[in-house]
Amino acid sequence: MGVNSNRVENFSDHDNDTDHPQAQTIIRVESLPLPQPQRGVHRVSMPPKRTTLQKLKQRLAEIFFPDDPLHRFKNQSWVRKFILGLQFLFPIFQWAPEYGLRPFRSDLVSGLTIASLAIPQGISYAKLANLPPIVGLYSSFVPPLIYSVLGSSRHLGVGPVSIASLVMGSMLTESVSSTQDPILYLKLAFTATFFAGLFQASLGLLRLGFVIDFLSKATLVGFMAGAAIIVSLQQLKGLLGIVHFTSKMQFVPVMSSVFKQRDEWSWQTVVLGISFLIFLLGTRHISMRRPKLFWVSAAAPLTSVIISTLIVYLLRSKAHGISTIGHLPKGLNPPSSNMLYLSEPYLALAVKTGLVTGILSLTEGIAVGRTFAALKNYQVDGNKEMMAIGMMNMAGSCSSCYVTTGSFSRSAVNYNAGAQTAVSNIVMATAVLVTLLFLMPLFYYTPNVILAAIIITAVIGLIDYQAAFRLWKVDKLDFVACLSSFFGVLFISVPLGLAIAVGISVFKILLHVTRPNTVVLGNIPGTQIYQSLTRYREALKVPSFLILAVEAPIYFANSTYLQERILRWVREEEEWIKENNGSALKCLILDMTAVTAIDTSGIDAIREIKKMLEKRSIKLVLTNPVATVMEKLHQSKTLEYLGLDGLYVTVGEAVSDISSQWKCHA
Amino acid sequence: MGVNSNRVENFSDHDNDTDHPQAQTIIRVESLPLPQPQRGVHRVSMPPKRTTLQKLKQRLAEIFFPDDPLHRFKNQSWVRKFILGLQFLFPIFQWAPEYGLRPFRSDLVSGLTIASLAIPQGISYAKLANLPPIVGLYSSFVPPLIYSVLGSSRHLGVGPVSIASLVMGSMLTESVSSTQDPILYLKLAFTATFFAGLFQASLGLLRLGFVIDFLSKATLVGFMAGAAIIVSLQQLKGLLGIVHFTSKMQFVPVMSSVFKQRDEWSWQTVVLGISFLIFLLGTRHISMRRPKLFWVSAAAPLTSVIISTLIVYLLRSKAHGISTIGHLPKGLNPPSSNMLYLSEPYLALAVKTGLVTGILSLTEGIAVGRTFAALKNYQVDGNKEMMAIGMMNMAGSCSSCYVTTGSFSRSAVNYNAGAQTAVSNIVMATAVLVTLLFLMPLFYYTPNVILAAIIITAVIGLIDYQAAFRLWKVDKLDFVACLSSFFGVLFISVPLGLAIAVGISVFKILLHVTRPNTVVLGNIPGTQIYQSLTRYREALKVPSFLILAVEAPIYFANSTYLQERILRWVREEEEWIKENNGSALKCLILDMTAVTAIDTSGIDAIREIKKMLEKRSIKLVLTNPVATVMEKLHQSKTLEYLGLDGLYVTVGEAVSDISSQWKCHA
Repeated sequence: MGVNSNRVENFSDHDNDTDHPQAQTIIRVESLPLPQPQRGVHRVSMPPKRTTLQKLKQRLAEIFFPDDPLHRFKNQSWVRKFILGLQFLFPIFQWAPEYGLRPFRSDLVSGLTIASLAIPQGISYAKLANLPPIVGLYSSFVPPLIYSVLGSSRHLGVGPVSIASLVMGSMLTESVSSTQDPILYLKLAFTATFFAGLFQASLGLLRLGFVIDFLSKATLVGFMAGAAIIVSLQQLKGLLGIVHFTSKMQFVPVMSSVFKQRDEWSWQTVVLGISFLIFLLGTRHISMRRPKLFWVSAAAPLTSVIISTLIVYLLRSKAHGISTIGHLPKGLNPPSSNMLYLSEPYLALAVKTGLVTGILSLTEGIAVGRTFAALKNYQVDGNKEMMAIGMMNMAGSCSSCYVTTGSFSRSAVNYNAGAQTAVSNIVMATAVLVTLLFLMPLFYYTPNVILAAIIITAVIGLIDYQAAFRLWKVDKLDFVACLSSFFGVLFISVPLGLAIAVGISVFKILLHVTRPNTVVLGNIPGTQIYQSLTRYREALKVPSFLILAVEAPIYFANSTYLQERILRWVREEEEWIKENNGSALKCLILDMTAVTAIDTSGIDAIREIKKMLEKRSIKLVLTNPVATVMEKLHQSKTLEYLGLDGLYVTVGEAVSDISSQWKCHA
Repeated sequence: MGVNSNRVENFSDHDNDTDHPQAQTIIRVESLPLPQPQRGVHRVSMPPKRTTLQKLKQRLAEIFFPDDPLHRFKNQSWVRKFILGLQFLFPIFQWAPEYGLRPFRSDLVSGLTIASLAIPQGISYAKLANLPPIVGLYSSFVPPLIYSVLGSSRHLGVGPVSIASLVMGSMLTESVSSTQDPILYLKLAFTATFFAGLFQASLGLLRLGFVIDFLSKATLVGFMAGAAIIVSLQQLKGLLGIVHFTSKMQFVPVMSSVFKQRDEWSWQTVVLGISFLIFLLGTRHISMRRPKLFWVSAAAPLTSVIISTLIVYLLRSKAHGISTIGHLPKGLNPPSSNMLYLSEPYLALAVKTGLVTGILSLTEGIAVGRTFAALKNYQVDGNKEMMAIGMMNMAGSCSSCYVTTGSFSRSAVNYNAGAQTAVSNIVMATAVLVTLLFLMPLFYYTPNVILAAIIITAVIGLIDYQAAFRLWKVDKLDFVACLSSFFGVLFISVPLGLAIAVGISVFKILLHVTRPNTVVLGNIPGTQIYQSLTRYREALKVPSFLILAVEAPIYFANSTYLQERILRWVREEEEWIKENNGSALKCLILDMTAVTAIDTSGIDAIREIKKMLEKRSIKLVLTNPVATVMEKLHQSKTLEYLGLDGLYVTVGEAVSDISSQWKCHA
């Protein structure tokens, strides 16, 4: 300890000089060479002295490197460090050397299974984003390959996802029509994808992964349910065969679109759509009941596509009302880096869309990765995942792909099909490659209505009403955040709904800080335990003392409140004493255990309380301040202000020491 | 306790059935009829059962009525209640019945003293807001009268203040020129004043007073210093006699204006200005050194005005370069309710200006009121003050006044001059009335330069570099907030500078929540005290246990971080044990004392940690959860999930009980 802490040491020594022979129940353990057991009380220690720079360094390390990513490199040889570094940057090197035939068999099966899901999903989700269906297939080819090299999850199935597709479609369509200006729309989609990737990769690189933590689970439950309903309603366009449909994403215009265009409803489309929807929902139900039969729902989309294509092909002369996908170009992803749109007036739109879709797809990808990693007991590094997902989107934007991430449905199927490593993603990409090169003409007669049915089946699983019910039961404010993001998305707009929900979540934190709890403590007889009087019926009030536990950091946002609230406790206690003829209040003990931080306003509040109490001849004592609070009390010279016996390690020691002083003086 | 808590009770009883004869050092105090001392441990109590409605009610009471404003009405007769209610609404009834000649003498002296300050200040500040000087005098007449009836502070000197005048001037001038369209400008000023009052009164009525707490002291220190410098620089216009000057409020345009118009500098003005500035600063210095001589600085402005007016009058044929106030209309405040501008396109501007000036003047008024109330040991009710200040601004806007509040300089003079009640405000208003009716022609020759000197002297006191230095010493992030509001105001704009500073303050709260401290605890030998190992050198690690104190509520914003951080502590502990051949880690104790709240994500994190630890055969134990956390653990069935002995009242009891179990099983 340096020069600055001498004052505290002196001050404690001073405290030490006053002898209290009565205080025999408590023991002083000295760290100085002069132990005086059975006499004093424990001294509140200052935290080890650190410079501002050291504190800043530690603080930054906690903010940016809480997982201590370099701990593997400690005490290793240079060669080993190089290999570890390579494995750190490219997780493929972790498992590739030990890769063999046995895991490959599993990966082959699971890869082919997710391919059968990925192809119809890719086409459907691209339509959800108002993009040409082929872009969905492109996006199931390049990104999975890149992820298999860079990603640290072994079960993540990579590809386009419904939420990000929906959001991209709705945000871009508000400014640019995908039918009137398809080239500009496509350019903007790739540009938004590029910015999404850039944003994701920078979050990872700057280790700002905690940003996505602000999308709380409650927010996401509401958001997903709202988005799922909007998406399902939008699919009524395909399901009813409507041609002229609104491009808006809110509940009201979509529903009015559905009912205004009743003359466009086509009964053939409706019959086909409803039957396949029932089929798909049925297979989904089976797989949910028996997880072993996961392949039933996994194979259902491809089966529906094949059967419905066959039906339409056979009835092609009769069923004119049924719209089909039509011609799809054969061949690999064309390069699209020349299509990035980096000038006004749409740059801001592309950046905004990229940010929103980027953060949403990141949240889904990381949550999915963590879920399956937890099931198999391995770690997924959030910041590394962000870089992997970001890199794959940046590369994707240059090869005609739009936003991709780890998809929940794909990853679940992948996991259930027994995937061992990211090789299953490579197998899937190969299957998509074959499709792109040779099988595109087969989709000519695939009806659009089947894609609508596939999308509805996929998004319906996002409505987690049980989770919403749990939120209601456990935390009402979480439930409000959930509801507001639900209704925000449904009736206002996707980004605004999200923003409202994040706002409510942050407001909840601020509310907790602005109006913290204060609890009156009492002693549990025969022990040194002090607990809440309202909770512990056995706890008893200590005469002449008022013991308050403050349950929050003391900040500018609550210092005035706490000051007034504490003085109100004192006033009420005095009134109670008057009515009950109790012994006069002589000491207020503030238990600071839960005061995890204090700022300058908080310190002013403590001084103010001390001043107010002095006028009523009540003593103020603080117990057990945490390290940072102790530091600030010292730096602001509040320790001196509190006086010689204004600070104790525990409430118990404070009570015994102070009462023995009173006896001594009496 | 209702049905729901039975499970917990049963669960505790279960715990009770397992006998641990070794656990003799700890005592069980039962609240059930079967006490079994010397045998078990204390049970963690559920908080008293309350319905959602009850909880909501209590929460709302804490948010909106933390001061329990109705406590005076309890157990009183109806007549007494009526009188108390009248006194509650109109604090004048509290002191008026006992008012006598003796306090009146004090109030007369102090009222005349502040009038001598208020008249030149009123004229100067109105010029600061680009308003006609007479509006400043109007604003020193009606608002003080209204405040004296409604206000609860006895020392507040009411009138226009520099900060609010400056902000109003700068915000309105950005859209409307006060020289080219003076009528529209005046209308907007009254409208903004009306909205400021409406906003202030509604904050008070809705008991949302805590909103102003978000302007932390750190923010205000920086903001005031920045504003003071900008205002002083702006006064160079008057001090140098420049005619063409920028209407902008930023540092760069103001300084370039000063130096570009060098040919307009007038040496007569400069000489006059500098001499009076030195005189005013000198008197200020004297009063600050000797508080008893407060009247020296209080009387200085009026003296300067009189002397300088005389000088200019005598030299009127020679000194053409010196601009004067000129003709001021005689007479009382004209009504201005017909001048409220409630239609587009300037309504939004007026509302915005009203909000910003309203919150700033409210902050100043309440801070000043509290300061002087604390000196004389009486209470100022924040919400009531807001309503009083709001009402006086709404009334003011209808009688040609602009934004007023409790002014620091006026209140300090008022207090030092011995004011006893709000009657001193009435005296001041009367003095202003006399001035308005009879003395206006006397100001014809008053030079503008003297107003500039008065303003500079007033605002220079707002630069509190000592407070900034204290912030730097105690809290670096508070200092950053202070600096950013300082530079934001100086270089960007007043509202944006404020917004940035509030943003940083809120970010600081979020940062604390996002990256909370976790501390490893050890036992202080011979006691049941567990304290931080890094802080208390005498504290010792307990073999086979890892005891962590989490120092924050567990929220969505930190649940992932905490989960990873806690598992990292476990990993590091295991590595340490390996290196030192210690006994294997068997139990992780999380001390939840400082976990003041938990949400659904936090509960998921706890369950996740439990699951991860189970895989490593490490037991998870929580100690001392606070009431709300206990409730949520119960509602989410996490208590059952934690198992029979997963919960203790104190760390000490957890350690002794679990080690005795191990001994028992060994």
